[in-house]
Amino acid sequence: MNNFQFHNPTRIVFGEGTTSRLGELTAAYGKSILLVYGGGSIKATGLYDLVISQLSEIGATVHELAGIEPNPRLTTVNKGIELCRTHGIEFVIAVGGGSVIDAAKAIAAGALYEGDVWDFFTGKATIKKALPLGTVLTLAATGSEMNGNTVISHWDAKLKRGAGSPLLNPAFSILDPSLTYTVPRNHTVYGSVDIMSHVFEQYFSLTENTPLQERFCESILQTVIENVEPALADPNDKAARANLMWCGTMALNGGQISLGMVNDWASHGIEHEVSAIYDIPHGAGLAIIFPNWMRYVYKERPDRFAQYATRVWGIDATGKTEDELALAGIQATRDFFTRIGAESRLADFGIGEEQLDRMAEEAVRYRAIGSFKVLEKNDVREILRLSL
Amino acid sequence: MNNFQFHNPTRIVFGEGTTSRLGELTAAYGKSILLVYGGGSIKATGLYDLVISQLSEIGATVHELAGIEPNPRLTTVNKGIELCRTHGIEFVIAVGGGSVIDAAKAIAAGALYEGDVWDFFTGKATIKKALPLGTVLTLAATGSEMNGNTVISHWDAKLKRGAGSPLLNPAFSILDPSLTYTVPRNHTVYGSVDIMSHVFEQYFSLTENTPLQERFCESILQTVIENVEPALADPNDKAARANLMWCGTMALNGGQISLGMVNDWASHGIEHEVSAIYDIPHGAGLAIIFPNWMRYVYKERPDRFAQYATRVWGIDATGKTEDELALAGIQATRDFFTRIGAESRLADFGIGEEQLDRMAEEAVRYRAIGSFKVLEKNDVREILRLSL
Repeated sequence: MNNFQFHNPTRIVFGEGTTSRLGELTAAYGKSILLVYGGGSIKATGLYDLVISQLSEIGATVHELAGIEPNPRLTTVNKGIELCRTHGIEFVIAVGGGSVIDAAKAIAAGALYEGDVWDFFTGKATIKKALPLGTVLTLAATGSEMNGNTVISHWDAKLKRGAGSPLLNPAFSILDPSLTYTVPRNHTVYGSVDIMSHVFEQYFSLTENTPLQERFCESILQTVIENVEPALADPNDKAARANLMWCGTMALNGGQISLGMVNDWASHGIEHEVSAIYDIPHGAGLAIIFPNWMRYVYKERPDRFAQYATRVWGIDATGKTEDELALAGIQATRDFFTRIGAESRLADFGIGEEQLDRMAEEAVRYRAIGSFKVLEKNDVREILRLSL
Repeated sequence: MNNFQFHNPTRIVFGEGTTSRLGELTAAYGKSILLVYGGGSIKATGLYDLVISQLSEIGATVHELAGIEPNPRLTTVNKGIELCRTHGIEFVIAVGGGSVIDAAKAIAAGALYEGDVWDFFTGKATIKKALPLGTVLTLAATGSEMNGNTVISHWDAKLKRGAGSPLLNPAFSILDPSLTYTVPRNHTVYGSVDIMSHVFEQYFSLTENTPLQERFCESILQTVIENVEPALADPNDKAARANLMWCGTMALNGGQISLGMVNDWASHGIEHEVSAIYDIPHGAGLAIIFPNWMRYVYKERPDRFAQYATRVWGIDATGKTEDELALAGIQATRDFFTRIGAESRLADFGIGEEQLDRMAEEAVRYRAIGSFKVLEKNDVREILRLSL
């Protein structure tokens, strides 16, 4: 276990009906609000009306930025920043999933920065101040509701990049599982893949002596695996929805499950290059890439992959070599993603080898990626080729 | 899973050598410091000198309250409150284990309260403000380093009571596992029992649908069980000490492992009555009482106890009834506590039945205790009798 620091001041308000606390929670932060949301499903479900009524009860003035894209775009973020400056916004509220929350974070940081907000994503500048923000989560997936990270797409340049700061930790996040009952089926699928992928990036680590952290990771993986199919079978399954939502938050709340471990994040980096160009859902890209990353890297530490197979998938170790166990665990992952309805090949999205080189090049634009196995351009290209 | 709220702003700084960050971490909070510690072992180990040098480097004025008792006493807390008032203390630093931290918290609350600090422990008053505090933890056990709770003994009245407030969450806690290398052997034993007991109080719950929470609890229990004996065999075992320390913090950091679950805490309540009268180590009392509590209550939910037996102790379920499994898990707990050197009977401390009635009466002084099984006076008396 390495030395670490951990500080996560986000207040979590979890449970059915907790959206009705939005007004009370917001009141401490100001009355000039920017409300950020996506494609309008919150209007169809009545959530929008509830949010507006909560905010009018505290006498807030609400400006709106609707239409955040599934891979949120810099151009949209810039519209939000402009709204903040024009209207003297004091507090940003994100109502949606990871894309909406990430856009709100970028807006919160950009509003108080004189330069181009993209500077934070290229490393040209670091975030020194930000507007406070709160979230109402509508999808179990991102973890963004309890961390300080944001990922934004620069669509013209076909780049998708992350930035982060403790200043971007939401002041509060409302986690009401009942808001996820109505999400499209594939959002539940991709969100669950996303949660599992966040854990994979932390769990497959070369750091020694992290037994509690490994078990926390395995706990989330097992719980997601046993709850996805019930949630798909009955979208109103209260228990399954609550479990998935809490798993999503715990999987990526500032790395709490893997404190003192070196994380990898190469698969996310690779997926970002795919969705930067092809605009496919993040979770879909991860479902395609992760099992291929696993096959490509497992020999760095087959014991961890064998442990994954036995503890997470309950694969019987009797008579199996460590390599056989490891490969069985990887196959179980692939089979599970397929069984719940995620795509398994880039070809399922009509993606061929045309842009492999460019994606591989971009993935290592600043440096080689990953830590479990450090990946150079050729490695990334091979993982993408295996994913075709 | 019930609705819940979670907010834990304590900053954790974990790892060998992190005590050298004390000055830097303290500087933000003020220069008039009350330093609280115990029986002087920190002088023998050189920790005291390091702390003082850290605080002089930032130009702080340090007042000291030494001699905090293992079951910290109200009289000592009052001395600390007086020091705060006399010297205009701005920040309280606790260097020690749970007793020292709990005393520092009570001092931090009492210093800004005009009445008697004991009011917070009888429920006569609630904590509205408190001095900020930081901790340097020297024992893996309490969890107090990352929560807002404190337990104090009113020695004259033979009462031991708890109080709590988010205001008592340490601003920061330094968790340096190397500080635990030199603790007496029985502190490692009792500390580990304490950690496991904190998990038991949360894990044995009637709340339904909490699979992630249960697994988090089991993760800590398994990790403590596999690290105690290595730490006892080699007190300088870096890995074991780090794991025990992180388990202790995660086991009781505002209930994060059991969010949405109703906790029990009856065994702690019963133990408090024993140590309030007989001043035995908290962990020793828990090791005696918990297995007897388990036997007394397991029929409320034998499935949870059977799950405990198989998942935590790896007991083979083949051919066993649920009750047999449950009892095997309880026996494994008793055997483990005995194997690591904890006492198994009150008689080991010379405690007979003389005060059973009084302890049972005090345990339910305000109300029946527990939730897994609600315990009235006669129930408490019976658990104590089984523990003789």
